[in-house]
Amino acid sequence: MDRSHPAVHPVAVPPLFHLPPAHLRMKDLPGSPGTLGGLALRVGQFGFAIIAFGVMVAMTDFSTVTAFCYLVAAMVLQCLWSISLAIIDLYALLTRRSLRNSLLVGVFVVGDGVTSTLTLAAACATAGITVFIDNDLGDCGPGHCAKFEAAAAMAFLSWILIQLSFLFSFYLLATR
Amino acid sequence: MDRSHPAVHPVAVPPLFHLPPAHLRMKDLPGSPGTLGGLALRVGQFGFAIIAFGVMVAMTDFSTVTAFCYLVAAMVLQCLWSISLAIIDLYALLTRRSLRNSLLVGVFVVGDGVTSTLTLAAACATAGITVFIDNDLGDCGPGHCAKFEAAAAMAFLSWILIQLSFLFSFYLLATR
Repeated sequence: MDRSHPAVHPVAVPPLFHLPPAHLRMKDLPGSPGTLGGLALRVGQFGFAIIAFGVMVAMTDFSTVTAFCYLVAAMVLQCLWSISLAIIDLYALLTRRSLRNSLLVGVFVVGDGVTSTLTLAAACATAGITVFIDNDLGDCGPGHCAKFEAAAAMAFLSWILIQLSFLFSFYLLATR
Repeated sequence: MDRSHPAVHPVAVPPLFHLPPAHLRMKDLPGSPGTLGGLALRVGQFGFAIIAFGVMVAMTDFSTVTAFCYLVAAMVLQCLWSISLAIIDLYALLTRRSLRNSLLVGVFVVGDGVTSTLTLAAACATAGITVFIDNDLGDCGPGHCAKFEAAAAMAFLSWILIQLSFLFSFYLLATR
């Protein structure tokens, strides 16, 4: 048995990396920019944000409360950001291009972080004021508070999806 | 000059990693758990949260508004979380132990994420209601709204620090 093996073994050169290269790991993330999951997240964010915007704007007296105006502004920003990123994702998917550039992912992280914070802030302010008018003051017109609550809930759902996008982009940036 | 060098060069075995090993990169992060920067962040979070709690509780009528009660509850949670993590950081620093365990960092990420979201939500709800009472209703007692605003501002400062802790912990988890 031993004779079949050569007496001198060649020096084994250890592999350069035990882990797969960074670009392979990046590609595997299902919700990262430039993937179908990433596109779905953007479409979801846009959808919930535009519903929140529509519900709030449909109330004629929303402009009397500063925080409700802020929610409308935040939802407009969220819609613009999400639709822009959805278009970029769609372009990357159709042309099979990669969005794994560090600078680009950095821009996504900062943008997602800022819009996520603004959206959560607007949703919380709206929810807080609605609870204040409804429960604490008991001064809500018929069906008014239900609509403000619906707008806040849609903004929250949009925030959950943008927070997921932020975490995926940040993970990409950290493991690049 | 050339004669001093041997004619046959040994085969250079390439290094296993071009990047420093993961545990070294983890150690280099200044605000990560178990470092002096991490401890400073925890002490800052605790400090701002306890000031926000104190300012809010000092107002006798804070309990009439649901969102102000929520801010008090969120600040208590924030204080408990931050002081616990500060004690763990101090213990790690004094005994020179490492907090680079994946499970432990995972717990830090989840805890920081939850408390960060609750703190921002409470700060935004408080700020929104204060602006609503002060600007929209014009119904603020003397010095009342300034104190509510101060509590909201302290909660925001606490949120900024816990968000930094969250990002450091998440970065550690991503690059482990």
